[in-house]
Amino acid sequence: MFKKILIANRGEIALRIIRTCREMNIKTVAVYSLADKDSLHVRFADEAVCIGKAPSSESYLNIPNIIAAAEITNADAIHPGYGFLAENAEFSAVCEEYNIKFIGASPDMINQMGDKATAKATMKKAGVPTIPGSEGLLKDVEEGLKIAKKIKYPVILKATAGGGGRGMRIVKDESGFKKAWDDARQEAGAAFGNAGLYLEKFVEEPRHIEIQVVGDKNGRVCHLSERDCSIQRRHQKLVEETPSPIVSQELREKMGAAAIKGAEAIKYEGAGTVEFLVDKHGDFYFMEMNTRIQVEHPITEEVTDFDLIKEQIKVAAGVEISGRNYFPNLYAMECRINAEDPSNGFRPSPGKITNLHMPGGHGVRVDSHVYAGYTIPPNYDSMIAKLIVSGQSREEVITRMKRALSEFVIEGIKTTIPFHIKLMDDKQFQEGNFTTKFLETFDFSDL
Amino acid sequence: MFKKILIANRGEIALRIIRTCREMNIKTVAVYSLADKDSLHVRFADEAVCIGKAPSSESYLNIPNIIAAAEITNADAIHPGYGFLAENAEFSAVCEEYNIKFIGASPDMINQMGDKATAKATMKKAGVPTIPGSEGLLKDVEEGLKIAKKIKYPVILKATAGGGGRGMRIVKDESGFKKAWDDARQEAGAAFGNAGLYLEKFVEEPRHIEIQVVGDKNGRVCHLSERDCSIQRRHQKLVEETPSPIVSQELREKMGAAAIKGAEAIKYEGAGTVEFLVDKHGDFYFMEMNTRIQVEHPITEEVTDFDLIKEQIKVAAGVEISGRNYFPNLYAMECRINAEDPSNGFRPSPGKITNLHMPGGHGVRVDSHVYAGYTIPPNYDSMIAKLIVSGQSREEVITRMKRALSEFVIEGIKTTIPFHIKLMDDKQFQEGNFTTKFLETFDFSDL
Repeated sequence: MFKKILIANRGEIALRIIRTCREMNIKTVAVYSLADKDSLHVRFADEAVCIGKAPSSESYLNIPNIIAAAEITNADAIHPGYGFLAENAEFSAVCEEYNIKFIGASPDMINQMGDKATAKATMKKAGVPTIPGSEGLLKDVEEGLKIAKKIKYPVILKATAGGGGRGMRIVKDESGFKKAWDDARQEAGAAFGNAGLYLEKFVEEPRHIEIQVVGDKNGRVCHLSERDCSIQRRHQKLVEETPSPIVSQELREKMGAAAIKGAEAIKYEGAGTVEFLVDKHGDFYFMEMNTRIQVEHPITEEVTDFDLIKEQIKVAAGVEISGRNYFPNLYAMECRINAEDPSNGFRPSPGKITNLHMPGGHGVRVDSHVYAGYTIPPNYDSMIAKLIVSGQSREEVITRMKRALSEFVIEGIKTTIPFHIKLMDDKQFQEGNFTTKFLETFDFSDL
Repeated sequence: MFKKILIANRGEIALRIIRTCREMNIKTVAVYSLADKDSLHVRFADEAVCIGKAPSSESYLNIPNIIAAAEITNADAIHPGYGFLAENAEFSAVCEEYNIKFIGASPDMINQMGDKATAKATMKKAGVPTIPGSEGLLKDVEEGLKIAKKIKYPVILKATAGGGGRGMRIVKDESGFKKAWDDARQEAGAAFGNAGLYLEKFVEEPRHIEIQVVGDKNGRVCHLSERDCSIQRRHQKLVEETPSPIVSQELREKMGAAAIKGAEAIKYEGAGTVEFLVDKHGDFYFMEMNTRIQVEHPITEEVTDFDLIKEQIKVAAGVEISGRNYFPNLYAMECRINAEDPSNGFRPSPGKITNLHMPGGHGVRVDSHVYAGYTIPPNYDSMIAKLIVSGQSREEVITRMKRALSEFVIEGIKTTIPFHIKLMDDKQFQEGNFTTKFLETFDFSDL
């Protein structure tokens, strides 16, 4: 087992990793930017090294400085957390070169999954369902009609040069195809000077559902079921839960098997997440694979009783996994508490926390790096706490989350707590009836 | 279901009850003494009523003031927590008289279990194992010899007027009985002027193991397995855990069945605890029954996923239980964090908390009513937090507890944290090899 792990990150995830290392009797090295000198991860690590100024390029993204910190402290492994260098193939390669174990994916795996087109092709080859469509540009309307018939309607025509919905048409059946084709080409040509179109199956009422996997050095992979992350605002996840209200045991096993197949195809080692879109028919399609720990990993921990950071460290150290899969024995939900003003476009609200009370009690977990008197620097992402709640039913989790949110006192700054309280009271949310587009029509004005 | 519950208590348990009431959508009324006006239970309840000055007799034990508070706020139930009026038959009767549901035992049950001799006789009659011995005073040495032979050696002779170990003799076998009898009589006569002796089975290497039960209005009772509370100092529990390292599934089922038999005999309604001594042979003997929620109830919650306060409220409102029993699916341990100086005879250390950081993360729960800036009043018991940890094995729980303890920062006062850290490092404790006498020889000098 490793003797000393350097944590190349900050905030709650740095503290989270320190906690597990302590439980494993592994020494820890924190690295920090000047803006983070008063952070708890600096206080709770066994050693701490300043690696530069606040801009991440000069500190948390500065590979030479981090490697130097590992060398001088004699760390034999580096945990990158999420974000920053967690999915940076170069960093993974440099660690290898310096004989420091990178607790994450190999450069090769990162590259294979980092490029969307390569990832999709790899998964398709492995037999994982991907969104069907044309291979690149459509020659003409006939080719489009042929493919649409094969992959079944509805389909979506997209401008190859597109963005922001322009040059994009959803086609419900064959009778509307020709008109949609003409309209999209014209719009794309006018907007981008390029009328080229491609075609994809249109995913109806999509939910973002991801499968947690863990692989060992032998290429054996297990899954720990799903997380439903459909509550997003501008592709930023705000609330995650497990099990998903729309995933049956049958679908769970099918998605789990697909995720394992994909991860095995690239001999995946470590903790990873295979993200899918699930449509209203229960069909699912590969989106991407994250070759790192996710922000929302604690909900899986609460329902399976595993410490995923511990599993990550163990497999990085060569420990083999049992090979069995794990299914939820409880319900869990996470609300991301951000220093943002939800009534004002989620505008960041850094500053000093003048008063703080965190909720506690049965079924409540808080992962956070802040304390009363702490000043949130403006330089980093605005997440200041993860409130994780578990219970015997989804209903119990929602009432408990509401209680915990109402008990959470953070004074001096604005937070997303009012949004979460309103969401917990939302009937549609309570019924589990939402897609990734749910927040597009949510009323934030009265928060 | 109740509309509004008055909580006739303070500190962490008052906050604990408020939390569950919020999750059940029940309004709460806090009562408080002048010394507690800045307490969190006052802040988080829907309403708060001052019921008098700091001495408990003038506030938390003052029945007319509490009933008046319930009347003016229109509370339809009172939860007494633990301590104070939780096992006060008069209070239970007065609540009944005022048509306010007392969330606890009836006056009759409290009386039956409150008097030790009555409780023992009741349980014996119900077929629950009690410590065998003479029925009161022994006539002569021959009667003693006869009973000792029947209940099997070792036995203990005790002076009826005794105390502090005087007039007490442990007898290992028949050959030593006569001498022990003479010695004990002489010592008792000299010390107390009364040479009368009685005899009991001597419980070898006793562990304090209690069974959590819940009964409903129909007299149906279920159990939720055991808690091992053998880590005690002067009969004060300091650490509790479940499952017990010495309880096999067979013993668990036997003790559970005995506890149910005892509780059913008195048609027990509500949450209660049947306390047993278990000897080194795995034989167990009834000690007493607590007709209330216990301080250590959270460890049972962590391993069964039940909210025991919720169950208590539900059965008080007339909800029937399923009748099945619940067994631990995890391991859990609680350390009582007291404002006491463990290196100085556990002397109370009230005062202002100048800095506070509570541990968090996977498997860690804190039940506490304190915050940074809070002044612990000298008037009440010194428990300021319960640190509850769960995990997949006892070993994981101990390493996690150590991590959480090392992360717990409370400045401005002395606490029992250093004692708990030393205990977690103790080899004998780690092996689960301890009795209720374990702390008698523990070295507190280097804390």
